[in-house]
Amino acid sequence: ALRGKHDAKSRVFADLSRDEYAQVQEYMLLQKDLCISTRQSTRPDENFLFLIELRVPRKAEVLTYLDAQGPAPRREATVVVYYGTEGYVKEYEVGPLPNPSYHRDVTRERYGVDLPLSARSVTIGEYILLFQFIEDRVFSPLSTLLWESFGVDHEHQLKPFEQMPRGLRADDRHTWMSFCRELSGLYIQPVGFEVLVNHRSTNASRWRVERVFYNGQYFDSVDALQDAYSAGTVKKIVKTPWEDYGSLKPRTRPLQLGPQLVNPEGARYSVSHNHILYMDWSFAFGLSAATGMRVFDVRFRDERILYELSVQEAMSVYGSMTPGLGMTKFLDSGFGIGRFAHELVRGVDCPYDATYVDTYRYIDAAGPVRTPNSICIFELYLGQPLRRHFADFFHNSYGGMANSALVFRTITAIENYDYMWDFVFYQTGAVEAKVHATGYISASFLVQGSLRHGHQVAPNVLGNIHTHFIHLKADLDVAGVKNMFQTKDMEYKNISLPWAPQHYAMTPHLVEKTLTTEKEAALRHGAKTPRYLHVSSNQTNRWGHARSYRLQVYSFAGEHLPESQPEERAMSWARYKVAVTKHKDSERSSSSVYSQNNMWNAPVDFSSFLQDNDNIHNQDLVAWVTAGFLHIPHAEDIPNTVTVGNGGGVLLRPHNYFDEDPSIDSPTACTWSPA
Amino acid sequence: ALRGKHDAKSRVFADLSRDEYAQVQEYMLLQKDLCISTRQSTRPDENFLFLIELRVPRKAEVLTYLDAQGPAPRREATVVVYYGTEGYVKEYEVGPLPNPSYHRDVTRERYGVDLPLSARSVTIGEYILLFQFIEDRVFSPLSTLLWESFGVDHEHQLKPFEQMPRGLRADDRHTWMSFCRELSGLYIQPVGFEVLVNHRSTNASRWRVERVFYNGQYFDSVDALQDAYSAGTVKKIVKTPWEDYGSLKPRTRPLQLGPQLVNPEGARYSVSHNHILYMDWSFAFGLSAATGMRVFDVRFRDERILYELSVQEAMSVYGSMTPGLGMTKFLDSGFGIGRFAHELVRGVDCPYDATYVDTYRYIDAAGPVRTPNSICIFELYLGQPLRRHFADFFHNSYGGMANSALVFRTITAIENYDYMWDFVFYQTGAVEAKVHATGYISASFLVQGSLRHGHQVAPNVLGNIHTHFIHLKADLDVAGVKNMFQTKDMEYKNISLPWAPQHYAMTPHLVEKTLTTEKEAALRHGAKTPRYLHVSSNQTNRWGHARSYRLQVYSFAGEHLPESQPEERAMSWARYKVAVTKHKDSERSSSSVYSQNNMWNAPVDFSSFLQDNDNIHNQDLVAWVTAGFLHIPHAEDIPNTVTVGNGGGVLLRPHNYFDEDPSIDSPTACTWSPA
Ligand SMILES: [Ca+2]
Ligand SMILES: [Ca+2]
Ligand SMILES: [Ca+2]
Ligand SMILES: [Ca+2]
Ligand SMILES: [Cu+2]
Ligand SMILES: [Cu+2]
Repeated sequence: ALRGKHDAKSRVFADLSRDEYAQVQEYMLLQKDLCISTRQSTRPDENFLFLIELRVPRKAEVLTYLDAQGPAPRREATVVVYYGTEGYVKEYEVGPLPNPSYHRDVTRERYGVDLPLSARSVTIGEYILLFQFIEDRVFSPLSTLLWESFGVDHEHQLKPFEQMPRGLRADDRHTWMSFCRELSGLYIQPVGFEVLVNHRSTNASRWRVERVFYNGQYFDSVDALQDAYSAGTVKKIVKTPWEDYGSLKPRTRPLQLGPQLVNPEGARYSVSHNHILYMDWSFAFGLSAATGMRVFDVRFRDERILYELSVQEAMSVYGSMTPGLGMTKFLDSGFGIGRFAHELVRGVDCPYDATYVDTYRYIDAAGPVRTPNSICIFELYLGQPLRRHFADFFHNSYGGMANSALVFRTITAIENYDYMWDFVFYQTGAVEAKVHATGYISASFLVQGSLRHGHQVAPNVLGNIHTHFIHLKADLDVAGVKNMFQTKDMEYKNISLPWAPQHYAMTPHLVEKTLTTEKEAALRHGAKTPRYLHVSSNQTNRWGHARSYRLQVYSFAGEHLPESQPEERAMSWARYKVAVTKHKDSERSSSSVYSQNNMWNAPVDFSSFLQDNDNIHNQDLVAWVTAGFLHIPHAEDIPNTVTVGNGGGVLLRPHNYFDEDPSIDSPTACTWSPA
Repeated sequence: ALRGKHDAKSRVFADLSRDEYAQVQEYMLLQKDLCISTRQSTRPDENFLFLIELRVPRKAEVLTYLDAQGPAPRREATVVVYYGTEGYVKEYEVGPLPNPSYHRDVTRERYGVDLPLSARSVTIGEYILLFQFIEDRVFSPLSTLLWESFGVDHEHQLKPFEQMPRGLRADDRHTWMSFCRELSGLYIQPVGFEVLVNHRSTNASRWRVERVFYNGQYFDSVDALQDAYSAGTVKKIVKTPWEDYGSLKPRTRPLQLGPQLVNPEGARYSVSHNHILYMDWSFAFGLSAATGMRVFDVRFRDERILYELSVQEAMSVYGSMTPGLGMTKFLDSGFGIGRFAHELVRGVDCPYDATYVDTYRYIDAAGPVRTPNSICIFELYLGQPLRRHFADFFHNSYGGMANSALVFRTITAIENYDYMWDFVFYQTGAVEAKVHATGYISASFLVQGSLRHGHQVAPNVLGNIHTHFIHLKADLDVAGVKNMFQTKDMEYKNISLPWAPQHYAMTPHLVEKTLTTEKEAALRHGAKTPRYLHVSSNQTNRWGHARSYRLQVYSFAGEHLPESQPEERAMSWARYKVAVTKHKDSERSSSSVYSQNNMWNAPVDFSSFLQDNDNIHNQDLVAWVTAGFLHIPHAEDIPNTVTVGNGGGVLLRPHNYFDEDPSIDSPTACTWSPA
């Protein structure tokens, strides 16, 4: 059933291979003057090779290569080094691959500013020290309190759940750690004990506990809590038994297998290296450790529709009476979204006989790491007709076609939450990008006033209200790179009927507009938005209409953080349901791995992409889409949030792009009529 | 895997059997004084037994029977008779079944007014006369024109596509018929020739053509067109070849089967009579010839969640330069929604091994008619986890469960459009009601100014802009019949941080409200609506929160017809995204079979349900949900609109109804952790 051929040129988008990572690592280690370590336990005061990742070549070069027989773009890696000795972070371009021979500091070129060391992620090396710090400076001195309040002993341990951002202003690295019972889903096991650790210094011996929270009361130090506790002036937490209510263990025995998906005549798609063919579709794929999954050069019947479709960011803002969660704003790319694309479980995360692909990455590790089965690809039968009609007027006849579509999926489990990311390719020429949330909610210990921020969901546990916003980049190239942003909607107009002119009636009219500047094309949440949004071409279809793709956004998003807040610019993309910008190689991503820990001075502020208010008429356009949902946790979020109803996304669908529905050419349709 | 038992009491909701229809028909024919005919060709000036349908007993009686060991409610039928001899329509209650012995005129009791004969549907009997009329009074005199303009000959025929409502004011029965080539999907084959037929009289010999439309020009009669045509003063349509672009015939041979759904260990649900069991679910079902499918007494773990979930109406409003479609407002229950629930095609409309159920109905026929396989029931594997979590912090573990759900489906093909209606029952306790549209669009011949109302989609054919609104009734009974309507949302409040009081931050707060009157609870489209809508109980869950079900509406609805329009009150339900009313037996349905043909005086005006502004606090509540989408047709609507992206619905999901996610008890979950 394959209509196309695999295209070796798609390797231009391929993630680095294990060998390529190794070569880059080796090359960087040869730069003795940089004094780089690759030990996983590298301390904050040393220089650490944190990340190696493919640098996707500039679009113009890629297009010359793909479309105009131009030379293959140079293959290069991005390398991120944390310079603990110098107090800054550097990004390098290293190339060419294979056999790298040069590196170039591109930090200022890419971000316009230097990156302070405080913008870096917390590495395994720093966590080792942090956990030791907690052990020595918190758990040890408080062992009596921990036993009396929480039943902590050798068998019953607390583990910290960190809150972000780490502080209140630029250069802070002060992390609230909320302690939770080490049971299944520790995120829903908070005990009401939190500490604020200042780990700003690269010298761990200078770290200190700045504040302590216990049962709703604040103390300036661990000693202060210990003293008050001994003196009996603390309102003590009453010890309760440990209950593993976060357990996902089935309570009943499987009696009977549920329905399964089978491909009786084999798969109708093909995966070769990083290239996929499915019916009329072809595309290349990759997985960025930072931003997550992405596809490139998406073609239908060999005509490119998207240059790139990619995950950019996942963000959550929480409300709580407790100090940690009360200020929490998670930006998942700060952890690395693709980094946490773990192995998928057959039959649960994807169908049993899906195709599973291994990925390799190099992030916060001593070398490249293989993650088996971290991407799955399968054709899903949707259990419904894609289209059908039964005629019983005048004569009986039937025609129809079942709906099946190719799904490209990763699931990223970043601490408590699991996001399921799907790109879906339909036989109609539509592509969908969507995300569903599951996993554990972030919860807080119930204190006075907690119910202003959510509902109780477990003994002494509040499920805290929060937003989910995800950001997607859709670099549509609709019949070429030069596109327009067009809107369509309806409007009632009062017209006199030509056949009964004395009679007036309100009738629906089509209203079309073309938005020509980035500021016009920045569609804010809450503002009235035209119902149809299109990226369209100068080319017309057989009927004279602009060939276009429509963006249909599915979202139940909550309220975006007010712009008055200093953290807002790190997530300013979430102001807009849809924003359309002129493509720039310097605006590859709407967020950055440095935004989480330097929220007050984030090196990428998406709203600045629109600030120059570029003309977007007949330009290479990029559509940036925000989807999400407001999450008011409820008892049924225990043990896990369910995917049903908890998601959002965008459907990119042809609208006068073709001359008729392309599924009419599908080999799977059927018809009948009476003999 | 079945946890419950089939409940014979659910027969109280069962549609009439073939034998029951026959008994009612026989009983009515015995009432000689009524002079009723049951011939299918009964003329408009005769009395016709149009409809026999189950009359669902009053809720109070049913609940006494189901819950309090009360007596079985009397089984009764509704009978609709068109009195051509008298000029009115009557509704009767006929009972008891079996062996009916009484009939009672309930017209005024149900509608508060008498029903004029003009409110009736066009029966087969009337269509026979109408088509003869067209043959004699339009086609015959114009045969030369029809040949020269359209190529009409013995092999090439035109067929009429009727537009609604039939006129401009009460008591009109003036139908614009738009002529289309008799090819696949005649609705997209308009030729630019339409006639306005006045068939108000019950005496077909008094019918007349009131206006003629040809190629954008209007004429007062067929003769006037014929004369002008002969005189050469008409702008003629240039004959074009007949092109079967609406054909659904596959153009390529099936090469390879697509993915299929299988139940390797058999179905995990059971259907007995009109009762279904699936995992923790049980419910009764029926199919009303007028309003379509419905389920009753929906229980999860034997606790009732919904007394009724049902389709109420499907409506569309069109814009066009052509006279017929220019005023068109379809109300599908005027045709009968369930009436057109035709046989489902295995493997296309539903999975091959779904369970298919036959239905019986009596509408516009000489006797009860069996429609084989008109409902399908199957468990759908959704190709995704229902929930999952992978932990890699501190220790590796995984727990998850695949998402499969029971689907209850009918597809109703009413002239051009096919609506796929799904009720979906999830293992989380959520129920979804949704609809997708497919089939043929309604199109018009391209004339001057047409592009104000849509896009060209075929040679000389415009796809006309239109709305789709569907209405659903959800009589939720959440932990009993006495419920509240509650809303939840978020709001940012500026608070001083308790641990750093000089620092203020905007943090998300939960905002809860209870709406206590019907007018407050009538949430209009376009108005700002709280993000969470709940039907809640006085009962609390383990954590002290009101047990509730949340209504999450999926809709891309267009603009509702302005209230200034005389037709609007027949569809006033579409003003509201969600409206919550106090349950009344007299307010069973938000529309009526009489609304289409008596739009200016519709016997049911949903907005009147709210007019008395009943208190809805601690009452039996009914939630009425509107979903839909704006449809701006495009080339890809040819030959058929696709289901992908063209739908809407509502998800009813537990929110603090349980103490934890009930899927944790599912026998299909799995976990693993390292040995
Ligand atoms: Ca710009
Ligand atoms: Ca583009
Ligand atoms: Ca009322
Ligand atoms: Ca109720
Ligand atoms: Cu959430
Ligand atoms: Cu439509």
